Amino acid sequence: MWVHGPETFPSSLPDSVRWVQLPFAGIEPWFDAGVIDDKRVWTSAAGAYAGNVAEHTMMLLLAGVRSLPEQLAAQSWRKEEFDPRVGTLQGSTVAIIGCGGIGRALIPYLAASKVKVIAITRSGTPVEGASETLSADRTGEIWSKADHFVIAAPSTSATRHLVGKAELDQMSESSWIVNIARGTLVDTDALVDALEAGSIGGAALDVTDPEPLPDGHRLWKLPNAIITPHVANPATTLTRVLADHVAANVARFAAGEDLAAVIDPSAGY
Amino acid sequence: MWVHGPETFPSSLPDSVRWVQLPFAGIEPWFDAGVIDDKRVWTSAAGAYAGNVAEHTMMLLLAGVRSLPEQLAAQSWRKEEFDPRVGTLQGSTVAIIGCGGIGRALIPYLAASKVKVIAITRSGTPVEGASETLSADRTGEIWSKADHFVIAAPSTSATRHLVGKAELDQMSESSWIVNIARGTLVDTDALVDALEAGSIGGAALDVTDPEPLPDGHRLWKLPNAIITPHVANPATTLTRVLADHVAANVARFAAGEDLAAVIDPSAGY
Repeated sequence: MWVHGPETFPSSLPDSVRWVQLPFAGIEPWFDAGVIDDKRVWTSAAGAYAGNVAEHTMMLLLAGVRSLPEQLAAQSWRKEEFDPRVGTLQGSTVAIIGCGGIGRALIPYLAASKVKVIAITRSGTPVEGASETLSADRTGEIWSKADHFVIAAPSTSATRHLVGKAELDQMSESSWIVNIARGTLVDTDALVDALEAGSIGGAALDVTDPEPLPDGHRLWKLPNAIITPHVANPATTLTRVLADHVAANVARFAAGEDLAAVIDPSAGY
Repeated sequence: MWVHGPETFPSSLPDSVRWVQLPFAGIEPWFDAGVIDDKRVWTSAAGAYAGNVAEHTMMLLLAGVRSLPEQLAAQSWRKEEFDPRVGTLQGSTVAIIGCGGIGRALIPYLAASKVKVIAITRSGTPVEGASETLSADRTGEIWSKADHFVIAAPSTSATRHLVGKAELDQMSESSWIVNIARGTLVDTDALVDALEAGSIGGAALDVTDPEPLPDGHRLWKLPNAIITPHVANPATTLTRVLADHVAANVARFAAGEDLAAVIDPSAGY
Protein backbone atom coordinates (compact mmCIF):
# COMPACT_ATOMS: atom_id res chain seq x y z
CA MET A 1 0.00 0.00 0.00
CA TRP A 2 1.57 3.26 -1.17
CA VAL A 3 0.19 6.48 0.34
CA HIS A 4 2.52 9.06 -1.23
CA GLY A 5 3.09 10.36 -4.75
CA PRO A 6 5.22 8.54 -7.36
CA GLU A 7 8.38 10.65 -6.79
CA THR A 8 9.59 8.63 -3.82
CA PHE A 9 8.40 5.23 -5.05
CA PRO A 10 11.16 2.52 -4.81
CA SER A 11 13.07 2.20 -8.09
CA SER A 12 12.55 -1.54 -8.03
CA LEU A 13 10.32 -3.89 -6.09
CA PRO A 14 11.08 -7.48 -5.04
CA ASP A 15 9.33 -10.00 -7.29
CA SER A 16 7.61 -11.35 -4.19
CA VAL A 17 5.40 -8.24 -4.14
CA ARG A 18 2.35 -9.52 -5.98
CA TRP A 19 0.10 -6.50 -5.55
CA VAL A 20 0.51 -2.72 -5.12
CA GLN A 21 -2.41 -0.52 -4.02
CA LEU A 22 -2.05 3.18 -4.98
CA PRO A 23 -3.95 5.89 -3.09
CA PHE A 24 -5.43 7.99 -5.92
CA ALA A 25 -8.11 7.48 -8.56
CA GLY A 26 -6.18 9.25 -11.33
CA ILE A 27 -2.84 7.51 -11.61
CA GLU A 28 -1.27 9.04 -14.72
CA PRO A 29 1.67 10.49 -12.67
CA TRP A 30 2.68 6.91 -11.81
CA PHE A 31 2.64 6.00 -15.48
CA ASP A 32 4.63 9.15 -16.34
CA ALA A 33 7.19 8.21 -13.68
CA GLY A 34 7.53 4.70 -15.12
CA VAL A 35 6.53 3.14 -11.81
CA ILE A 36 3.83 0.78 -13.07
CA ASP A 37 5.16 -2.50 -14.47
CA ASP A 38 3.57 -5.73 -15.66
CA LYS A 39 5.21 -7.99 -13.05
CA ARG A 40 2.37 -7.74 -10.53
CA VAL A 41 -1.17 -6.44 -10.05
CA TRP A 42 -1.56 -2.69 -9.50
CA THR A 43 -4.76 -1.20 -8.18
CA SER A 44 -5.83 2.43 -7.90
CA ALA A 45 -8.46 4.06 -5.72
CA ALA A 46 -10.76 4.46 -8.75
CA GLY A 47 -14.35 4.17 -7.62
CA ALA A 48 -13.60 4.72 -3.93
CA TYR A 49 -14.26 8.42 -4.19
CA ALA A 50 -17.00 8.08 -6.78
CA GLY A 51 -19.88 8.92 -4.42
CA ASN A 52 -18.35 12.19 -3.29
CA VAL A 53 -17.25 13.23 -6.76
CA ALA A 54 -20.70 12.42 -8.17
CA GLU A 55 -22.27 14.55 -5.44
CA HIS A 56 -19.98 17.46 -6.32
CA THR A 57 -20.78 16.96 -10.01
CA MET A 58 -24.50 17.17 -9.33
CA MET A 59 -23.98 20.38 -7.34
CA LEU A 60 -21.96 21.96 -10.16
CA LEU A 61 -24.46 20.94 -12.84
CA LEU A 62 -27.45 22.21 -10.84
CA ALA A 63 -25.70 25.45 -9.87
CA GLY A 64 -24.99 26.11 -13.54
CA VAL A 65 -28.36 25.18 -15.01
CA ARG A 66 -30.25 27.01 -12.24
CA SER A 67 -28.08 30.21 -12.49
CA LEU A 68 -26.87 30.12 -8.88
CA PRO A 69 -23.69 32.22 -9.37
CA GLU A 70 -25.52 35.40 -10.41
CA GLN A 71 -28.09 34.89 -7.64
CA LEU A 72 -25.31 34.52 -5.06
CA ALA A 73 -23.69 37.72 -6.30
CA ALA A 74 -26.95 39.68 -6.03
CA GLN A 75 -27.57 41.93 -3.02
CA SER A 76 -31.23 42.59 -3.81
CA TRP A 77 -34.40 40.61 -4.62
CA ARG A 78 -34.18 40.47 -8.44
CA LYS A 79 -36.94 37.87 -8.96
CA GLU A 80 -38.27 39.21 -12.27
CA GLU A 81 -34.76 39.28 -13.71
CA PHE A 82 -33.63 35.85 -12.48
CA ASP A 83 -36.88 33.86 -12.78
CA PRO A 84 -36.70 33.39 -16.58
CA ARG A 85 -32.98 32.56 -16.34
CA VAL A 86 -33.36 29.67 -13.90
CA GLY A 87 -33.36 26.46 -15.91
CA THR A 88 -34.13 22.93 -14.87
CA LEU A 89 -32.65 19.50 -15.44
CA GLN A 90 -36.16 18.00 -15.54
CA GLY A 91 -36.62 16.32 -18.88
CA SER A 92 -33.17 17.21 -20.24
CA THR A 93 -30.53 14.93 -21.75
CA VAL A 94 -27.11 14.66 -20.10
CA ALA A 95 -24.13 12.91 -21.68
CA ILE A 96 -21.60 11.34 -19.32
CA ILE A 97 -18.34 11.01 -21.20
CA GLY A 98 -16.39 8.23 -19.53
CA CYS A 99 -19.16 6.61 -17.54
CA GLY A 100 -17.15 4.62 -14.98
CA GLY A 101 -17.56 4.65 -11.21
CA ILE A 102 -18.28 8.37 -10.95
CA GLY A 103 -20.74 8.36 -13.83
CA ARG A 104 -22.55 5.36 -12.42
CA ALA A 105 -22.79 7.09 -9.03
CA LEU A 106 -24.11 10.21 -10.78
CA ILE A 107 -26.96 8.44 -12.58
CA PRO A 108 -29.26 8.12 -9.51
CA TYR A 109 -29.05 11.90 -8.95
CA LEU A 110 -29.91 12.54 -12.59
CA ALA A 111 -32.71 9.97 -12.45
CA ALA A 112 -34.26 11.98 -9.60
CA SER A 113 -34.53 14.88 -12.09
CA LYS A 114 -35.96 12.57 -14.79
CA VAL A 115 -32.90 13.18 -16.95
CA LYS A 116 -32.22 11.05 -20.01
CA VAL A 117 -28.62 9.84 -19.70
CA ILE A 118 -26.34 9.04 -22.63
CA ALA A 119 -23.35 7.11 -21.30
CA ILE A 120 -20.07 6.86 -23.19
CA THR A 121 -17.78 4.00 -22.19
CA ARG A 122 -14.75 2.45 -23.88
CA SER A 123 -16.62 -0.72 -24.81
CA GLY A 124 -20.15 0.58 -25.15
CA THR A 125 -21.49 -2.19 -22.88
CA PRO A 126 -24.89 -0.91 -21.64
CA VAL A 127 -24.67 1.05 -18.38
CA GLU A 128 -27.54 0.46 -15.95
CA GLY A 129 -29.81 3.49 -15.70
CA ALA A 130 -28.58 5.10 -18.93
CA SER A 131 -31.10 5.50 -21.77
CA GLU A 132 -28.33 4.80 -24.22
CA THR A 133 -24.70 3.69 -23.99
CA LEU A 134 -22.27 4.44 -26.81
CA SER A 135 -18.74 3.16 -27.27
CA ALA A 136 -15.97 5.75 -27.14
CA ASP A 137 -15.52 5.79 -30.94
CA ARG A 138 -19.05 7.23 -31.23
CA THR A 139 -18.38 10.20 -28.90
CA GLY A 140 -18.70 12.53 -31.90
CA GLU A 141 -22.44 11.86 -32.07
CA ILE A 142 -23.33 13.38 -28.73
CA TRP A 143 -22.29 17.03 -28.94
CA SER A 144 -25.39 18.18 -30.81
CA LYS A 145 -27.63 15.58 -29.17
CA ALA A 146 -27.30 16.17 -25.40
CA ASP A 147 -28.21 19.30 -23.44
CA HIS A 148 -25.36 19.06 -20.93
CA PHE A 149 -22.03 17.26 -20.71
CA VAL A 150 -20.21 15.66 -17.79
CA ILE A 151 -16.54 14.89 -18.43
CA ALA A 152 -15.55 11.89 -16.31
CA ALA A 153 -13.08 10.07 -18.57
CA PRO A 154 -9.56 9.08 -17.55
CA SER A 155 -6.71 11.26 -18.72
CA THR A 156 -4.86 9.51 -21.55
CA SER A 157 -3.31 10.60 -24.82
CA ALA A 158 -6.59 9.60 -26.50
CA THR A 159 -8.76 11.83 -24.29
CA ARG A 160 -6.59 14.97 -24.42
CA HIS A 161 -8.66 17.91 -25.67
CA LEU A 162 -11.68 15.66 -26.03
CA VAL A 163 -13.68 18.89 -25.85
CA GLY A 164 -12.30 21.49 -28.28
CA LYS A 165 -13.65 24.12 -30.65
CA ALA A 166 -15.36 21.62 -32.98
CA GLU A 167 -17.25 20.02 -30.10
CA LEU A 168 -18.14 23.34 -28.42
CA ASP A 169 -19.51 24.67 -31.71
CA GLN A 170 -22.13 21.91 -31.75
CA MET A 171 -23.50 22.66 -28.26
CA SER A 172 -26.51 24.88 -27.57
CA GLU A 173 -26.54 28.30 -25.91
CA SER A 174 -27.91 26.74 -22.74
CA SER A 175 -25.51 23.78 -22.56
CA TRP A 176 -23.36 23.35 -19.47
CA ILE A 177 -20.12 21.37 -19.35
CA VAL A 178 -18.98 19.94 -16.03
CA ASN A 179 -15.41 18.64 -15.76
CA ILE A 180 -14.52 16.68 -12.65
CA ALA A 181 -11.92 14.42 -14.35
CA ARG A 182 -8.73 16.15 -15.53
CA GLY A 183 -8.23 19.62 -16.92
CA THR A 184 -6.42 18.44 -20.04
CA LEU A 185 -9.58 16.75 -21.35
CA VAL A 186 -10.86 20.21 -22.27
CA ASP A 187 -9.10 22.71 -24.55
CA THR A 188 -9.12 25.66 -22.15
CA ASP A 189 -8.56 28.35 -24.80
CA ALA A 190 -11.44 27.06 -26.94
CA LEU A 191 -13.65 26.83 -23.85
CA VAL A 192 -12.91 30.39 -22.76
CA ASP A 193 -13.67 31.63 -26.28
CA ALA A 194 -17.07 29.87 -26.20
CA LEU A 195 -17.83 31.19 -22.71
CA GLU A 196 -16.89 34.75 -23.68
CA ALA A 197 -19.02 34.53 -26.82
CA GLY A 198 -21.94 33.06 -24.87
CA SER A 199 -22.23 30.27 -27.43
CA ILE A 200 -22.71 27.75 -24.58
CA GLY A 201 -24.49 28.17 -21.24
CA GLY A 202 -21.42 27.73 -19.10
CA ALA A 203 -18.73 25.52 -17.64
CA ALA A 204 -18.28 24.22 -14.11
CA LEU A 205 -14.76 22.98 -13.52
CA ASP A 206 -13.30 21.21 -10.51
CA VAL A 207 -10.16 20.60 -12.57
CA THR A 208 -8.42 22.98 -14.93
CA ASP A 209 -5.57 23.19 -17.43
CA PRO A 210 -3.28 24.66 -16.25
CA GLU A 211 -3.86 23.53 -12.70
CA PRO A 212 -3.68 25.27 -10.31
CA LEU A 213 -5.40 27.95 -12.38
CA PRO A 214 -3.08 30.97 -12.24
CA ASP A 215 -4.19 34.28 -10.73
CA GLY A 216 -5.57 36.62 -13.38
CA HIS A 217 -6.57 33.79 -15.76
CA ARG A 218 -9.56 34.73 -17.93
CA LEU A 219 -11.65 31.91 -16.41
CA TRP A 220 -11.72 33.62 -13.00
CA LYS A 221 -13.62 36.62 -14.36
CA LEU A 222 -16.29 34.87 -16.42
CA PRO A 223 -19.82 34.99 -14.96
CA ASN A 224 -20.70 31.72 -16.68
CA ALA A 225 -17.73 29.77 -15.29
CA ILE A 226 -17.81 28.03 -11.90
CA ILE A 227 -14.40 27.04 -10.54
CA THR A 228 -13.87 24.80 -7.51
CA PRO A 229 -10.20 24.04 -6.76
CA HIS A 230 -10.11 20.21 -7.16
CA VAL A 231 -12.15 19.61 -4.01
CA ALA A 232 -14.83 17.22 -5.32
CA ASN A 233 -13.30 14.55 -3.13
CA PRO A 234 -12.74 16.63 -0.01
CA ALA A 235 -10.11 16.14 2.67
CA THR A 236 -12.86 15.84 5.27
CA THR A 237 -13.74 12.37 4.02
CA LEU A 238 -10.75 11.18 1.98
CA THR A 239 -8.94 9.06 4.57
CA ARG A 240 -12.02 7.24 5.79
CA VAL A 241 -13.20 6.49 2.25
CA LEU A 242 -9.74 5.27 1.16
CA ALA A 243 -9.49 3.05 4.25
CA ASP A 244 -12.81 1.40 3.40
CA HIS A 245 -11.65 0.82 -0.19
CA VAL A 246 -8.33 -0.75 0.87
CA ALA A 247 -9.92 -2.90 3.57
CA ALA A 248 -12.37 -4.32 1.01
CA ASN A 249 -9.53 -5.00 -1.45
CA VAL A 250 -7.40 -6.74 1.19
CA ALA A 251 -10.35 -8.97 2.02
CA ARG A 252 -10.71 -9.81 -1.69
CA PHE A 253 -6.96 -10.54 -1.98
CA ALA A 254 -7.06 -12.82 1.06
CA ALA A 255 -10.04 -14.67 -0.38
CA GLY A 256 -8.38 -15.02 -3.79
CA GLU A 257 -11.08 -12.90 -5.46
CA ASP A 258 -10.69 -10.30 -8.23
CA LEU A 259 -9.49 -6.95 -6.86
CA ALA A 260 -11.37 -3.69 -7.38
CA ALA A 261 -9.85 -0.92 -9.57
CA VAL A 262 -7.15 -3.03 -11.23
CA ILE A 263 -4.94 -0.85 -13.43
CA ASP A 264 -4.62 -1.86 -17.07
CA PRO A 265 -1.06 -0.86 -18.11
CA SER A 266 -1.95 -1.11 -21.80
CA ALA A 267 -4.91 1.29 -21.42
CA GLY A 268 -3.02 3.71 -19.18
CA TYR A 269 -5.53 3.73 -16.30
CA MET B 1 -59.80 26.85 -13.59
CA TRP B 2 -58.53 30.10 -12.08
CA VAL B 3 -55.15 31.38 -13.33
CA HIS B 4 -54.91 34.70 -11.45
CA GLY B 5 -54.51 35.66 -7.80
CA PRO B 6 -57.41 35.79 -5.29
CA GLU B 7 -57.95 39.59 -5.56
CA THR B 8 -60.12 39.40 -8.67
CA PHE B 9 -61.87 36.13 -7.80
CA PRO B 10 -65.72 36.37 -8.18
CA SER B 11 -67.38 37.27 -4.90
CA SER B 12 -69.79 34.38 -5.31
CA LEU B 13 -69.91 31.31 -7.54
CA PRO B 14 -73.01 29.57 -8.89
CA ASP B 15 -73.81 26.41 -6.93
CA SER B 16 -73.50 24.50 -10.21
CA VAL B 17 -69.71 24.96 -10.07
CA ARG B 18 -68.68 21.69 -8.46
CA TRP B 19 -64.90 22.09 -8.68
CA VAL B 20 -62.38 24.97 -8.74
CA GLN B 21 -58.74 24.39 -9.72
CA LEU B 22 -56.32 27.05 -8.40
CA PRO B 23 -52.94 27.62 -10.10
CA PHE B 24 -50.53 27.72 -7.12
CA ALA B 25 -49.22 25.18 -4.63
CA GLY B 26 -49.37 27.54 -1.63
CA ILE B 27 -52.93 28.80 -1.41
CA GLU B 28 -53.01 30.72 1.87
CA PRO B 29 -53.83 34.02 0.06
CA TRP B 30 -57.12 32.43 -1.10
CA PHE B 31 -57.93 31.48 2.49
CA ASP B 32 -57.00 34.97 3.69
CA ALA B 33 -59.29 36.47 1.04
CA GLY B 34 -62.18 34.24 2.14
CA VAL B 35 -62.48 32.74 -1.32
CA ILE B 36 -62.45 29.05 -0.40
CA ASP B 37 -65.83 27.72 0.74
CA ASP B 38 -67.18 24.28 1.58
CA LYS B 39 -69.83 24.21 -1.17
CA ARG B 40 -67.61 22.49 -3.73
CA VAL B 41 -64.23 20.80 -4.22
CA TRP B 42 -61.17 23.07 -4.45
CA THR B 43 -57.84 21.85 -5.72
CA SER B 44 -54.44 23.51 -5.70
CA ALA B 45 -51.37 22.86 -7.80
CA ALA B 46 -49.67 21.17 -4.80
CA GLY B 47 -47.38 18.46 -6.08
CA ALA B 48 -47.29 19.70 -9.67
CA TYR B 49 -44.14 21.70 -9.09
CA ALA B 50 -42.65 19.22 -6.64
CA GLY B 51 -39.97 17.91 -9.01
CA ASN B 52 -38.58 21.34 -9.78
CA VAL B 53 -38.72 22.53 -6.19
CA ALA B 54 -37.00 19.35 -4.99
CA GLU B 55 -34.26 19.88 -7.59
CA HIS B 56 -33.73 23.46 -6.36
CA THR B 57 -33.71 22.21 -2.76
CA MET B 58 -30.99 19.69 -3.57
CA MET B 59 -28.91 22.41 -5.24
CA LEU B 60 -29.25 24.71 -2.21
CA LEU B 61 -28.39 21.96 0.27
CA LEU B 62 -25.35 20.80 -1.72
CA ALA B 63 -24.14 24.37 -2.33
CA GLY B 64 -24.28 25.00 1.42
CA VAL B 65 -22.73 21.79 2.66
CA ARG B 66 -20.00 21.89 -0.01
CA SER B 67 -19.14 25.61 0.61
CA LEU B 68 -19.89 26.75 -2.94
CA PRO B 69 -20.56 30.46 -2.14
CA GLU B 70 -17.02 31.17 -0.90
CA GLN B 71 -15.52 29.21 -3.79
CA LEU B 72 -17.58 31.23 -6.29
CA ALA B 73 -16.42 34.46 -4.69
CA ALA B 74 -12.74 33.44 -4.93
CA GLN B 75 -10.55 34.77 -7.73
CA SER B 76 -7.61 32.48 -7.05
CA TRP B 77 -6.92 28.75 -6.54
CA ARG B 78 -7.34 28.47 -2.75
CA LYS B 79 -7.38 24.66 -2.55
CA GLU B 80 -5.59 24.27 0.80
CA GLU B 81 -8.01 26.75 2.37
CA PHE B 82 -11.24 25.35 0.90
CA ASP B 83 -10.49 21.63 0.89
CA PRO B 84 -11.11 21.10 4.63
CA ARG B 85 -14.24 23.27 4.47
CA VAL B 86 -15.99 21.25 1.76
CA GLY B 87 -18.42 18.91 3.47
CA THR B 88 -20.44 16.05 2.09
CA LEU B 89 -23.97 14.77 2.42
CA GLN B 90 -22.68 11.18 2.24
CA GLY B 91 -23.73 9.40 5.39
CA SER B 92 -25.47 12.41 6.97
CA THR B 93 -29.00 12.65 8.37
CA VAL B 94 -31.47 15.11 6.83
CA ALA B 95 -34.84 15.95 8.37
CA ILE B 96 -37.62 16.96 5.97
CA ILE B 97 -40.18 18.96 7.94
CA GLY B 98 -43.47 18.66 6.09
CA CYS B 99 -42.68 15.70 3.87
CA GLY B 100 -45.39 16.03 1.22
CA GLY B 101 -44.95 16.10 -2.55
CA ILE B 102 -41.72 18.13 -2.50
CA GLY B 103 -40.18 16.06 0.28
CA ARG B 104 -41.06 12.82 -1.47
CA ALA B 105 -39.50 14.13 -4.70
CA LEU B 106 -36.38 15.12 -2.72
CA ILE B 107 -35.81 11.68 -1.19
CA PRO B 108 -34.36 10.07 -4.36
CA TYR B 109 -31.70 12.83 -4.58
CA LEU B 110 -30.80 12.30 -0.93
CA ALA B 111 -30.77 8.53 -1.42
CA ALA B 112 -28.13 9.02 -4.13
CA SER B 113 -25.92 10.56 -1.41
CA LYS B 114 -26.74 7.72 1.01
CA VAL B 115 -28.48 10.17 3.34
CA LYS B 116 -30.61 8.94 6.23
CA VAL B 117 -33.95 10.79 5.95
CA ILE B 118 -36.21 11.64 8.88
CA ALA B 119 -39.59 12.64 7.49
CA ILE B 120 -42.10 14.70 9.48
CA THR B 121 -45.72 14.53 8.33
CA ARG B 122 -48.97 15.54 9.96
CA SER B 123 -50.05 11.96 10.54
CA GLY B 124 -46.69 10.21 10.85
CA THR B 125 -47.71 7.56 8.31
CA PRO B 126 -44.42 6.07 7.04
CA VAL B 127 -43.00 7.84 3.99
CA GLU B 128 -41.37 5.55 1.41
CA GLY B 129 -37.60 5.98 1.35
CA ALA B 130 -37.40 7.66 4.75
CA SER B 131 -35.50 5.85 7.51
CA GLU B 132 -38.00 7.17 10.00
CA THR B 133 -41.29 9.10 9.82
CA LEU B 134 -42.50 11.13 12.77
CA SER B 135 -45.88 12.80 13.27
CA ALA B 136 -45.87 16.59 13.48
CA ASP B 137 -46.29 16.61 17.28
CA ARG B 138 -42.85 14.96 17.56
CA THR B 139 -41.05 17.67 15.53
CA GLY B 140 -39.25 18.78 18.71
CA GLU B 141 -37.19 15.57 18.68
CA ILE B 142 -35.34 16.25 15.45
CA TRP B 143 -33.38 19.45 16.03
CA SER B 144 -30.52 17.81 17.88
CA LYS B 145 -30.81 14.55 15.93
CA ALA B 146 -30.46 15.52 12.25
CA ASP B 147 -27.47 17.16 10.53
CA HIS B 148 -29.48 19.30 8.12
CA PHE B 149 -33.06 20.53 7.87
CA VAL B 150 -35.35 21.03 4.89
CA ILE B 151 -38.44 23.14 5.60
CA ALA B 152 -41.23 22.03 3.26
CA ALA B 153 -44.34 22.39 5.42
CA PRO B 154 -47.42 24.40 4.44
CA SER B 155 -47.81 27.86 5.92
CA THR B 156 -50.48 27.77 8.62
CA SER B 157 -50.89 29.36 12.05
CA ALA B 158 -49.45 26.14 13.51
CA THR B 159 -46.24 26.24 11.44
CA ARG B 160 -45.43 29.96 11.92
CA HIS B 161 -41.91 30.31 13.37
CA LEU B 162 -41.51 26.54 13.41
CA VAL B 163 -37.77 27.28 13.46
CA GLY B 164 -36.89 29.83 16.14
CA LYS B 165 -34.15 30.40 18.70
CA ALA B 166 -34.94 27.26 20.73
CA GLU B 167 -34.68 25.05 17.64
CA LEU B 168 -31.58 26.79 16.23
CA ASP B 169 -29.82 26.41 19.59
CA GLN B 170 -30.05 22.62 19.27
CA MET B 171 -28.43 22.45 15.82
CA SER B 172 -24.73 21.82 15.21
CA GLU B 173 -22.13 24.24 13.87
CA SER B 174 -22.21 22.47 10.52
CA SER B 175 -26.00 22.24 10.16
CA TRP B 176 -27.66 23.80 7.12
CA ILE B 177 -31.31 24.84 6.97
CA VAL B 178 -33.00 24.99 3.57
CA ASN B 179 -36.36 26.75 3.33
CA ILE B 180 -38.30 26.35 0.09
CA ALA B 181 -41.78 26.58 1.67
CA ARG B 182 -42.75 29.97 3.11
CA GLY B 183 -40.59 32.58 4.83
CA THR B 184 -42.82 32.80 7.91
CA LEU B 185 -41.97 29.24 8.94
CA VAL B 186 -38.59 30.55 10.12
CA ASP B 187 -38.07 33.33 12.68
CA THR B 188 -35.80 35.52 10.55
CA ASP B 189 -34.31 37.51 13.45
CA ALA B 190 -33.39 34.36 15.37
CA LEU B 191 -31.92 32.85 12.18
CA VAL B 192 -29.77 35.90 11.44
CA ASP B 193 -28.49 35.87 15.04
CA ALA B 194 -27.47 32.21 14.66
CA LEU B 195 -25.83 32.86 11.27
CA GLU B 196 -23.90 35.86 12.59
CA ALA B 197 -22.75 33.89 15.64
CA GLY B 198 -21.75 30.92 13.45
CA SER B 199 -23.68 28.59 15.73
CA ILE B 200 -25.09 26.80 12.65
CA GLY B 201 -23.45 26.08 9.29
CA GLY B 202 -25.76 28.22 7.23
CA ALA B 203 -29.15 28.81 5.68
CA ALA B 204 -30.27 28.57 2.07
CA LEU B 205 -33.56 30.36 1.51
CA ASP B 206 -35.72 30.51 -1.59
CA VAL B 207 -38.41 32.19 0.52
CA THR B 208 -37.94 34.88 3.15
CA ASP B 209 -39.82 36.87 5.77
CA PRO B 210 -40.27 39.64 4.83
CA GLU B 211 -40.56 38.78 1.14
CA PRO B 212 -39.32 40.30 -1.05
CA LEU B 213 -36.27 40.65 1.18
CA PRO B 214 -35.63 44.41 1.39
CA ASP B 215 -32.41 45.98 0.15
CA GLY B 216 -29.87 46.34 2.95
CA HIS B 217 -31.34 43.46 5.01
CA ARG B 218 -28.69 41.72 7.16
CA LEU B 219 -29.25 38.40 5.31
CA TRP B 220 -27.83 39.83 2.08
CA LYS B 221 -24.40 40.35 3.64
CA LEU B 222 -23.94 37.03 5.42
CA PRO B 223 -21.38 34.67 3.81
CA ASN B 224 -23.25 31.64 5.22
CA ALA B 225 -26.62 32.61 3.75
CA ILE B 226 -27.71 31.69 0.23
CA ILE B 227 -30.71 33.63 -1.08
CA THR B 228 -32.58 32.79 -4.27
CA PRO B 229 -35.62 35.01 -4.96
CA HIS B 230 -38.47 32.46 -4.89
CA VAL B 231 -37.41 30.84 -8.15
CA ALA B 232 -37.39 27.14 -7.17
CA ASN B 233 -40.29 26.64 -9.54
CA PRO B 234 -39.02 28.74 -12.43
CA ALA B 235 -41.06 30.56 -15.06
CA THR B 236 -39.26 28.58 -17.78
CA THR B 237 -41.26 25.47 -16.89
CA LEU B 238 -44.25 26.66 -14.86
CA THR B 239 -46.89 26.78 -17.59
CA ARG B 240 -46.05 23.40 -19.06
CA VAL B 241 -45.98 21.71 -15.66
CA LEU B 242 -49.28 23.32 -14.58
CA ALA B 243 -50.92 22.27 -17.85
CA ASP B 244 -49.92 18.64 -17.25
CA HIS B 245 -51.31 18.81 -13.70
CA VAL B 246 -54.66 20.29 -14.80
CA ALA B 247 -55.02 17.89 -17.73
CA ALA B 248 -54.54 14.92 -15.40
CA ASN B 249 -57.08 16.34 -12.92
CA VAL B 250 -59.66 16.98 -15.65
CA ALA B 251 -59.26 13.37 -16.78
CA ARG B 252 -59.81 12.22 -13.17
CA PHE B 253 -62.90 14.47 -12.85
CA ALA B 254 -64.36 13.11 -16.08
CA ALA B 255 -63.77 9.55 -14.90
CA GLY B 256 -65.32 10.25 -11.50
CA GLU B 257 -62.04 9.56 -9.71
CA ASP B 258 -60.53 11.37 -6.71
CA LEU B 259 -58.81 14.59 -7.72
CA ALA B 260 -55.16 15.36 -6.95
CA ALA B 261 -54.29 18.15 -4.48
CA VAL B 262 -57.73 18.57 -2.95
CA ILE B 263 -57.72 21.48 -0.46
CA ASP B 264 -58.85 20.70 3.09
CA PRO B 265 -60.57 23.90 4.33
CA SER B 266 -60.32 22.76 7.95
CA ALA B 267 -56.54 22.22 7.68
CA GLY B 268 -55.94 25.44 5.76
CA TYR B 269 -54.08 23.87 2.81
